Amino acid sequence: MDLKEYLKKQCQVVDDALEKYLPRAEELPTSLHSSMRYSVFAGGKRVRPILLLAACDTVGGKTADALPAACAMEMIHTYSLIHDDLPAMDDDDFRRGNPTNHKVYGEATAILAGDALLTEAFILLSREGGDLDPAARVRVIQEIAHASGSHGMVGGQVVDMESEGGGPVDLATLSYIHTHKTGALIRASVRAGALVGGADAASLEALTRYGEAVGLAFQIADDILDVEGTTEELGKDAGSDEARGKATYPALMGLEASKQRANELVEMALDALARFDEKAEPLRAIASYIVKRKS
Amino acid sequence: MDLKEYLKKQCQVVDDALEKYLPRAEELPTSLHSSMRYSVFAGGKRVRPILLLAACDTVGGKTADALPAACAMEMIHTYSLIHDDLPAMDDDDFRRGNPTNHKVYGEATAILAGDALLTEAFILLSREGGDLDPAARVRVIQEIAHASGSHGMVGGQVVDMESEGGGPVDLATLSYIHTHKTGALIRASVRAGALVGGADAASLEALTRYGEAVGLAFQIADDILDVEGTTEELGKDAGSDEARGKATYPALMGLEASKQRANELVEMALDALARFDEKAEPLRAIASYIVKRKS
Repeated sequence: MDLKEYLKKQCQVVDDALEKYLPRAEELPTSLHSSMRYSVFAGGKRVRPILLLAACDTVGGKTADALPAACAMEMIHTYSLIHDDLPAMDDDDFRRGNPTNHKVYGEATAILAGDALLTEAFILLSREGGDLDPAARVRVIQEIAHASGSHGMVGGQVVDMESEGGGPVDLATLSYIHTHKTGALIRASVRAGALVGGADAASLEALTRYGEAVGLAFQIADDILDVEGTTEELGKDAGSDEARGKATYPALMGLEASKQRANELVEMALDALARFDEKAEPLRAIASYIVKRKS
Repeated sequence: MDLKEYLKKQCQVVDDALEKYLPRAEELPTSLHSSMRYSVFAGGKRVRPILLLAACDTVGGKTADALPAACAMEMIHTYSLIHDDLPAMDDDDFRRGNPTNHKVYGEATAILAGDALLTEAFILLSREGGDLDPAARVRVIQEIAHASGSHGMVGGQVVDMESEGGGPVDLATLSYIHTHKTGALIRASVRAGALVGGADAASLEALTRYGEAVGLAFQIADDILDVEGTTEELGKDAGSDEARGKATYPALMGLEASKQRANELVEMALDALARFDEKAEPLRAIASYIVKRKS
């Protein structure tokens, strides 16, 4: 399949839905809604929503039913980036080559835009049900909320923050950070797509294994890119992880071993998809692409 | 009825449920969970959860079914206080006589503790359903999410922040701030309680009017207390609204007119309850108490 064409098409599907679901910039308070939209439409690759739609499709579900959950994932991902970039956190001035939210709208509005995006995800999940029955909707909300909270993404961010600049981090801590900070949302995206699509227990389990492997591979690949990529390709300073003493796979186990680990994880992800037919082609192509991408 | 005894008893019911529902402080990451618990158990009066339980009871619902939503409201209220107190927002060092979250745990953890509490509210709402059918649960989640978001509480906070120190605010803006920043969560608490209790359309409408009147009365009474109360009674600096040029009812329409308005709103709240029997006594007593309290 032509993955590039597929990603482009799905990206547009997600962007159109986000455009429709998000409050318009003219709605009061306009500064808040402008700020929310600024970060949502700041050039994200829509990895999580695309994975969610692909997982739903893999088990025979409908894209229309999965779009609210897909957009909710992107809103949660975006809120986490806005808060991560704040002066009290990573203090980043640029993200994907653009000024970060708080550099444009100020710190207070950035905090509130993050809060509102997180909340908007749950407004969307509870308001737009498609043809999904209410019990499944509650299960999807639970899946996404749990992955985003103190035992998921936020928990990973706390441990990441606490370990930064505090001397060498062991592999167990780094693994905790990766599986929680980024892994949890990716895993939940795949699982939520499967749940929306009505996956049976065995398919849900297989897609969970796929999501876990892909999530970790994605993060290791990110660590590798930070070492090998150029500032131009990344849209942020290359080598920034090392400069701020951040724990990464290359720093901990070396560049070659990290690449090998990423490749192993991609193999595991592909193995997990063995039970599915050609509908799983996008998930297969995405897994392979993760370790090849340049940005 | 003995309102003081009732509030004390209900406060304990809510505290016990929060204790049960919140992640324990020993769970990883411990700093995050300690920080979340610090602010949740910092002496809040549990106004929103108590209103929610009382509204549920008024329409014949069960407290057990309403406790998840009641605790979710308190988690959302608490997260909003943590973020409001941040240096980039109101920059408050004390809240209810105790150091604010960021003074104890640092700014980054305070931001993340707020994020995690907001998320935990939706984990709880989607995980603990009691005997409630899934369609009603989705409706309750929608009610609470909408009231907390950019067209509700967060929207009110943005307008409040933007109007501060920017010269005189008109009554329309002040009304927007009050109905959104504090009113939305109080209204949603009463409505969510009614929804959990299986209220019919007319009862839901009556309780909505009660919630709106009580929410605004509560805020005007708060403004009045800031003028008339002592620092000791309030647990924060008396006169702090005036000192920071904050828009308030007393500043805009005078102290006496504000008191009259608060009393009118309490009458409207009581009128809205006319259709209910003695099960609504707690709601009646709470409405009357709002304009008499000293802190």
